This record gives sequence, C-alpha cells and structure tokens, in this order.
Amino acid sequence: MSTARTAQTFAPPVMEARRWVEGRPEEPPLINVSQAAPVAPPPPPMLEAMAEFVLTDPSSHLYGPVLGLEELRAEVAIQSANRYGGRIAPAQVAITSGCNEAYTAAMAALCGEGDEVILPLPWYFNHKMANDMAGIRTVPLGPGPGLIPDPEEAAALITERTRAIVLVTPNNPSGVEYPPEVMRRFFELAKEHGLRLIVDETYRDFHSGEGAPHDLFAGPDWPDVLVHLYSFSKAYRLTGHRVGAMIASARLLAEVEKYLDTVTICPAQLGQKAALWGMRNLAPWLAGERLEVLARRQAIVDGFPRLAAKGWALLGCGAYFAYVEHPFELASDALAKRLAQEAGVLLLPGTMFMPEGHPDARRQLRIAFANLDVPGVGVLFDRLEGFAA
Amino acid sequence: MSTARTAQTFAPPVMEARRWVEGRPEEPPLINVSQAAPVAPPPPPMLEAMAEFVLTDPSSHLYGPVLGLEELRAEVAIQSANRYGGRIAPAQVAITSGCNEAYTAAMAALCGEGDEVILPLPWYFNHKMANDMAGIRTVPLGPGPGLIPDPEEAAALITERTRAIVLVTPNNPSGVEYPPEVMRRFFELAKEHGLRLIVDETYRDFHSGEGAPHDLFAGPDWPDVLVHLYSFSKAYRLTGHRVGAMIASARLLAEVEKYLDTVTICPAQLGQKAALWGMRNLAPWLAGERLEVLARRQAIVDGFPRLAAKGWALLGCGAYFAYVEHPFELASDALAKRLAQEAGVLLLPGTMFMPEGHPDARRQLRIAFANLDVPGVGVLFDRLEGFAA
Repeated sequence: MSTARTAQTFAPPVMEARRWVEGRPEEPPLINVSQAAPVAPPPPPMLEAMAEFVLTDPSSHLYGPVLGLEELRAEVAIQSANRYGGRIAPAQVAITSGCNEAYTAAMAALCGEGDEVILPLPWYFNHKMANDMAGIRTVPLGPGPGLIPDPEEAAALITERTRAIVLVTPNNPSGVEYPPEVMRRFFELAKEHGLRLIVDETYRDFHSGEGAPHDLFAGPDWPDVLVHLYSFSKAYRLTGHRVGAMIASARLLAEVEKYLDTVTICPAQLGQKAALWGMRNLAPWLAGERLEVLARRQAIVDGFPRLAAKGWALLGCGAYFAYVEHPFELASDALAKRLAQEAGVLLLPGTMFMPEGHPDARRQLRIAFANLDVPGVGVLFDRLEGFAA
Repeated sequence: MSTARTAQTFAPPVMEARRWVEGRPEEPPLINVSQAAPVAPPPPPMLEAMAEFVLTDPSSHLYGPVLGLEELRAEVAIQSANRYGGRIAPAQVAITSGCNEAYTAAMAALCGEGDEVILPLPWYFNHKMANDMAGIRTVPLGPGPGLIPDPEEAAALITERTRAIVLVTPNNPSGVEYPPEVMRRFFELAKEHGLRLIVDETYRDFHSGEGAPHDLFAGPDWPDVLVHLYSFSKAYRLTGHRVGAMIASARLLAEVEKYLDTVTICPAQLGQKAALWGMRNLAPWLAGERLEVLARRQAIVDGFPRLAAKGWALLGCGAYFAYVEHPFELASDALAKRLAQEAGVLLLPGTMFMPEGHPDARRQLRIAFANLDVPGVGVLFDRLEGFAA
C-alpha cells in the first residue's frame, strides 16, 4: 500500500453513492436524500445583486485578502456577537473556501503528525477523511445516550497527544441538537486540558430553538479554547460558491492564514460578496426558510409511527437530517444500494459515519430530508414502509 | 515551538509585503510589482456571460462534481491535446480551486510524512510552504546556469524517499522558460526512477515561443510520469474565482478526488463556467493579451542597460516576471522594505524564493511587471536608477 496521505483514507461517500443509481429504471422517480444541500438557487433579489457585482465591481474578479473581505469579517463578528452574546472582533474571524476548508485549516494550525483529535460518533465523514490525510489519529467518542456525546467519557480519552475535541451541532449525520449545558461542559473540559474545542455549526440556522444555542462565547476566555466553524452554503443556498467562516483567536488565525494562502490563496470573491449581502438583507427570508425546514422535520416526526410499526426507529431528527435504525438483517451499506436500485431512494448508510466494523453502523441510515416538502416526506415513507429486504 | 503543521512554515510573503507600504507617503504613487495578478476584470463579453449564468443557470449556485464540470474537463482535454500533441482524456483532467490547490492535492496523492520532493531554485514560495505543512522534505536543486535546473544535478539528489520533481515554466519567480529538451530529460529521469514530474505551467499563455513548449504529452507513457498544473486565473483574469486544473492519470485523480472532496468539496461553479466560456470564446483576445505582455517584457529588456550601468543585472525575464540582481550591499529583504517606503516600489526580495541563508538571495529581487504598460516600465526604471541604498 502507498504511504501517500490520500492512501490513508477512503473514497468520497457522496460520489460513491451517486454510482448506486447508475442504470436504475426511470420509474419511480429518484428521491435523493443523500446530500445535505439546497437544490434551488438563492432568492431572486440576491441573484440580481450578484449579477450587479459581476458587471460593475471589478474586485469581484480579483484576488482579495487571504483571510477574507474585511467587511464580511466585520459583519460576521457583529452578528455572531449578537447571536451568541459575547465579544468577537473582526480580527477573530476568517473567511474560508467552504466550511470543510475551515476544518482542515484549523487542524493544520493545531495538529502535527501523530496528534489525536476526539470525534463523537456518528461522525461527519469529511472530518474523518481530513484527519486521516493530515496524519491525525481520530479517537472515536460514544455514541452517547440520545446520540449526545458524554464529556466524562471524553475526559477518559484524553492523552498527551490530544489537541482538540470536535462537536457538530445540530449534528451531521444525526440531526441531534446538543444541549447548551453539554457544550459548556465540553468547553470546560477542553480548557482544563489545554485543548481546543472545535464547534461546527454549519446547520445552526435551522436549529429548532430560539436564541443562542450555547453560551460558549460569553466569557472572556473563549479565544483560548473555542474554534467556531460556519458555512454560508446552507443559509443562502451558496454551496456552489464555497464560502465558510471560522471564529478563533487572532493568534490562531495568523497560523490559519499560512494554510489558506498556500491551499486556495483567498476565498472566491463573488461568494463572499453574496454572503455579505445575504447577512445584511436576507434575515426575514432565512427565518421563513427555517420555519419550512422545521415543518419538514415535524412531518418526519409525525409520520414516523407507521415506520416504527414495521420495526424502524428514529434515533435523531433536526436540521437537514433524520438518523434512523432500520429493521432488516441486511447491513446498512448493502441496504442503501438496494434502496437506491429497488425503491428509488438514495440515502447514506451508517457505515459511512462510523469506524469500520462498528456494530451500530449496520442498522443505521441518514436521511437528508431538507429538500423534501411535507407531501414528499409522505412519498418517502410510503417507499420505505413498502420495502422488504 | 508548536509541532502543528503551520508552525513548520513561514508567513505568506505577499501579505507580509503589503505591510511594508503601510504609512508611506502618498507621493510618489506606489508602483506595485509584488503580486503576479491581473488588476483588471475579465473583458466585458465574459462579464455579460457570467451575469447571465448567475441569473439564469441555477447550477451556478449549487454543488458540482468534486473533480469539476464534465464539459470543462473535456474542453481542457481537447485543447491541451491540441496544444501539446498527444492523447488526453477528460477523465485525466481535474478542476481545482486554483492552481495552488492542484499542487497541494498532487502532493497529498503522492507523498507521506518524511517523503522528499525536489524543487529547483529559486522556488515558488507556496510550493515550499505546501511541502512544509505536508511534512515533505524539500530538496533544493541549483540554481543552474541561466536559472535553468540541471537534470544531472537532480539525479544526484534522488533518494529512496524522493517522490517527485517540480518544474515551474515559465518560471515564477525568474520568468525563465525551460527549454523543451531540458523538460524531456527531467521526464526521462523521473520515469527511470519511478517518480512523478510535476510541471506547473500557470504562465504558459504568456510564453514567448509559438507552438508547444515541450513534448511531454507526446508519448503513451505520460500518465505514468507527468502531473500537469494550470491556472485559469492569469489567462482570463479570474484570480478572484479560484479555478485551476490538473492533468494526470485517472488513477492518480481518484486519489486527488479524496483530497479535493475533503478540503473544498468542489471548485466554485461560476468560475468554472467562466473558464469554459473563455476557452471557447476568448482565444483571439488572449492572443492579444499575450502580445501585450511580450511587449512589456521587451520594454524591460530594452530599458535594462541604464540599470546595468549602475550595477544591476537581469537574471531572467519572461511571463509576468523579471528576476534581477541589485548592486547594493544591503540584503534584498531590507532593500525591498526601503524601496517600498522610499522609492514607492513594492516588489519581493529573493529571500522569499530561496532557503534561509542562501547567499544568492541577498542580491536578488522579483519584479512582477505584467501590470505596467511600456511607459510604466520606464517610470519603474527611473525610480530604481535613482535609488541609492
């Protein structure tokens, strides 16, 4: 086997899943609940604004600062401080080419070869892949009860090589929203051990709760501990423009700057301008989007009893995701392929979110439901209910 | 010192250089020859096309394939085969978020911790930074006579840890165009030792020669040896959109796909659509751009004798760059700061393109002249001629 970095990890799950539907019959039409991504463009007023930037603002096409546009960094600082409570300076914000790059950049700034990072199960596969390729040993945590990671269990996993603990909330793949008191305990644990707590809130705009989802920015000590990751992709439907953000100490961002300069030089300018425009103009629209996603979530919860009657279980549900247990003997990866071919339902198996051979993974599936409207959830459930492995 | 990856390398040179002009007087106006980047937007017909994509093509805003848009990969394959002679399939082309990412992705697919890569001197600093952060030992080669690297000298540097040799032509920072027979000898050397030859042709559209700059794609064996890197940023003024390309074996690209998926998921869609539109529509325009850059290059060569009379030497000149030797006792990094403050000329010192302490670096400077018109070259030379250290 090659010793190259990419040889230490697996192939991209989403690309693999796309191959499962090759050659399937056209009927019934495919229900694609495999990827957590909007399928519609941004709303028309934002498109108009973007076209205007393209035509009249030359800086849309030129290099910009490595850490992102000043105005966008400032807007993220202000709105984040308002949302979470606490003090955040523009110099504590970096803009990245998507939230995945924010993660890889943070890892480069925190870890060296052989260092360890704690990832709760189920994990986001790109985090695992990033660790593999960076020479970082991933230490799995949990799953805890209700798929909420347990700080005490995490404490027992810390070694002298541990550099960070990663929390994704609302969680991908499980949809579970981590309670603020659990977040706080993880923060204190990280602080006590001189670690960083990485909090990925890519899906925070679809959190079911009102107000701040945690108080981690509240104290003066957050820059020593917290690395906060965010994506503009979901809120404003900008997946194709690659814009994410990181909030961390200015000192850490000086390290992050080396990585970003070397890998992508700067984030795409048009996506940044669109994100800024969205933050300034789309709050009411985004509030409506959130309510629609929450209605779809409710449709999953309300409709689930008929699947439960067939032996299915709903393990978690929130943001874009339902994480479910299926009733079949078949392992989830084999089941997912059959669901794609036979039921026209494309979803990802638990095996993609767990270490190889983990027993729970065999029974679990992720349903990224955000693109299904309420009737669409009904059609999905019809197909799952009718499926016999 | 931290053992984190970013702690193994230096701060981004271009960002550092920007700080040298802080607080300088407004007169004379700054001549910025520090960055190799267009300062104007793409031509108006391309802007119109891009605005249309934004407004009417929803896929401009959504995730696309990890390895890039099919049509763009196909167009790169066809045009590259035509340009270089040889057979190139769309499956042998990947689109990346800029050419820097093409380099880091190639390194991830080829090297592990402690492997070695040979970089000719002077080197492109982001290649050195990428190696540092990937745990790759950079083995400096040369500089050879005329700043052309010597394959025999390279042969003597190969060890069992060597994975690749990197050539940048036309070269950044020196502007030197490597002769095709030298390229071919490097190819044969790499092939003989089971290494990859990385050829970065970011500036190829401004090569002074007509026709193919090398014959490396001509034989059937290129996929075993060659990894070709390109950027759409310079040709079409798309620096702010982050679009580059890699040509390599489909097998290597399956590894590259893991890296790209994890770091940026996909390249920005609008930049890809613009690059494709440019390849299909802007060939005549680009030919004119090339002639203009070549005219500016000629102005550097023609004007240089008056600097030579003061002890300056022109070491290399091509593409966007003149690489020069200055006559002062002062080391180039200290000189560059003084030129910025006192002469209003922002350029990068040789110390940024050489290993620390290399004796040649003290005397060398890079002038990225592409944004100066012919009279502008005259003004630059006035300032350099009049400067006394």
